[in-house]
Amino acid sequence: MLKPLGDRVVIEVLEAEEKTASGIVLPDSAKEKPQEGKVVAVGTGRVLDNGTKEPLEVAEGDHIIFSKYSGTEVTFDGQDLLIIRENDILAVVK
Amino acid sequence: MLKPLGDRVVIEVLEAEEKTASGIVLPDSAKEKPQEGKVVAVGTGRVLDNGTKEPLEVAEGDHIIFSKYSGTEVTFDGQDLLIIRENDILAVVK
Amino acid sequence: MLKPLGDRVVIEVLEAEEKTASGIVLPDSAKEKPQEGKVVAVGTGRVLDNGTKEPLEVAEGDHIIFSKYSGTEVTFDGQDLLIIRENDILAVVK
Amino acid sequence: MLKPLGDRVVIEVLEAEEKTASGIVLPDSAKEKPQEGKVVAVGTGRVLDNGTKEPLEVAEGDHIIFSKYSGTEVTFDGQDLLIIRENDILAVVK
Amino acid sequence: MLKPLGDRVVIEVLEAEEKTASGIVLPDSAKEKPQEGKVVAVGTGRVLDNGTKEPLEVAEGDHIIFSKYSGTEVTFDGQDLLIIRENDILAVVK
Amino acid sequence: MLKPLGDRVVIEVLEAEEKTASGIVLPDSAKEKPQEGKVVAVGTGRVLDNGTKEPLEVAEGDHIIFSKYSGTEVTFDGQDLLIIRENDILAVVK
Amino acid sequence: MLKPLGDRVVIEVLEAEEKTASGIVLPDSAKEKPQEGKVVAVGTGRVLDNGTKEPLEVAEGDHIIFSKYSGTEVTFDGQDLLIIRENDILAVVK
Repeated sequence: MLKPLGDRVVIEVLEAEEKTASGIVLPDSAKEKPQEGKVVAVGTGRVLDNGTKEPLEVAEGDHIIFSKYSGTEVTFDGQDLLIIRENDILAVVK
Repeated sequence: MLKPLGDRVVIEVLEAEEKTASGIVLPDSAKEKPQEGKVVAVGTGRVLDNGTKEPLEVAEGDHIIFSKYSGTEVTFDGQDLLIIRENDILAVVK
Repeated sequence: MLKPLGDRVVIEVLEAEEKTASGIVLPDSAKEKPQEGKVVAVGTGRVLDNGTKEPLEVAEGDHIIFSKYSGTEVTFDGQDLLIIRENDILAVVK
Repeated sequence: MLKPLGDRVVIEVLEAEEKTASGIVLPDSAKEKPQEGKVVAVGTGRVLDNGTKEPLEVAEGDHIIFSKYSGTEVTFDGQDLLIIRENDILAVVK
Repeated sequence: MLKPLGDRVVIEVLEAEEKTASGIVLPDSAKEKPQEGKVVAVGTGRVLDNGTKEPLEVAEGDHIIFSKYSGTEVTFDGQDLLIIRENDILAVVK
Repeated sequence: MLKPLGDRVVIEVLEAEEKTASGIVLPDSAKEKPQEGKVVAVGTGRVLDNGTKEPLEVAEGDHIIFSKYSGTEVTFDGQDLLIIRENDILAVVK
Repeated sequence: MLKPLGDRVVIEVLEAEEKTASGIVLPDSAKEKPQEGKVVAVGTGRVLDNGTKEPLEVAEGDHIIFSKYSGTEVTFDGQDLLIIRENDILAVVK
């Protein structure tokens, strides 16, 4: 298991479907939008200046939208994962 | 539903009308001004150094003016939205 | 009405008279000085790290001097306005 | 009257005499040193992160030395003044 | 023994195996991913603005993943080690 | 008298002797080292975020070593002085 | 004696031996690693935002490893010393 440090989050990237339902390939520009992912593990939070630890807003299993090109790719147990900071997560899909 | 994180806001961009009432097309320079939008969802706020969470000033449904070119475009449920930080919102139209 | 966010201020720019009383046109260099404006609306203030909100020093109706080229132009109800941060206001004319 | 905001100070620049007592013109390099001024008005101070306002160290009438090229020139009531931040004031001449 | 200062950590780099189980050499791009290491010694922690010392999240013996190219190489007692800041550690492998 | 503001210090620069005891002129590189000075006047200190004023570590009369090229030269009462921030003082010679 | 200010430390640089035990000259790259030194004097510490002074982690006599190219060289009483900030010290050799 990977336990991220601080305000980091381990995510599994959800590949955007490159074809629409009717089979039309999307132009490249459309793929420059942020990516979606699933939260696999979260850190214990960020330490504030007053010494308290602020827990993360996201939790394991959350479906998220995050800034493209953020984070670091890792391969763990044969699975491609991404470790990003919570600040690079834009929104949770509910 | 998209739930933005922290001090982020999801907005629906209100397209500026490119023609005036009398049908005259506005010059490009006029379109470089900030854009208008409608707040669709707001984050839970920004965590201050003393550990409290400062709620956002804007609320769902607010009509706002925001800095052009700020934020990240997302397409959700076939709707084009923009996720921006509250700091890029200049004013609320009341 | 435009309600600016945080430490922002909406101002109406007061155009510098380009001629002196005796009708002499001022040289360009003289026009590079800061501009004058009238405060139209003020934000609720800046949130400090201790969680309190610091109200603005300026108030609606104040005649101010502000740094040229600061802020963002907006057109609202056919009126050209400028939204600036209080930090770009140099002084109040009393 | 000009009332500067925050930690700003309005000063009247004291022109350096370009000739020495014996009438010798000083070389340019000598004129690159900081300038002297007289404080005309002071702001109410800088707001600290704990919410208190720190009053300025200088007061109206003080004879000061300040960093050349700092601040913004304003012309008010036909008088050329300079608005600078207290941080650009190096010392008070006593 | 090396005792790192503050939020620093001494690690022993675990070399990535350049061949897969079946003996195939991995392409270079695959080796640009973050590196793995074993924590040899940890500092006493980072001093917060409120004067308390925040201990590190990692401990001696932890198996970690860290950002490639971070830290400073040292040779101590004939052993090649790396001194990095805890902030460059992405996750602990558990 | 010059009273420096905040964490500033007025110093009299002590010229490095360009010849050694035996009369040998030192090479230029040797003169790139930090300079020595004598403290002539000190500011009242730096205001911390909690509103207290931290007095300076150096006092009038101290013999100090400071970073070359730091500070601003002033001529006061015919004396060449330098106004620097305490942060540019490396050590006190005791 | 040199008394460094704040979080500064005076160190005596320990020259790396350029030959190994068997007399082989090390290649240049090997000499780009951090340097070792002995702490000669330490400052009183860094003032935190809450007004307390955080004493240094290192003490006089400590054998340290520090980042190459950091600090300022000084010659004092004929001895070549280096004044660095504690933050440039990587570890203490125990």
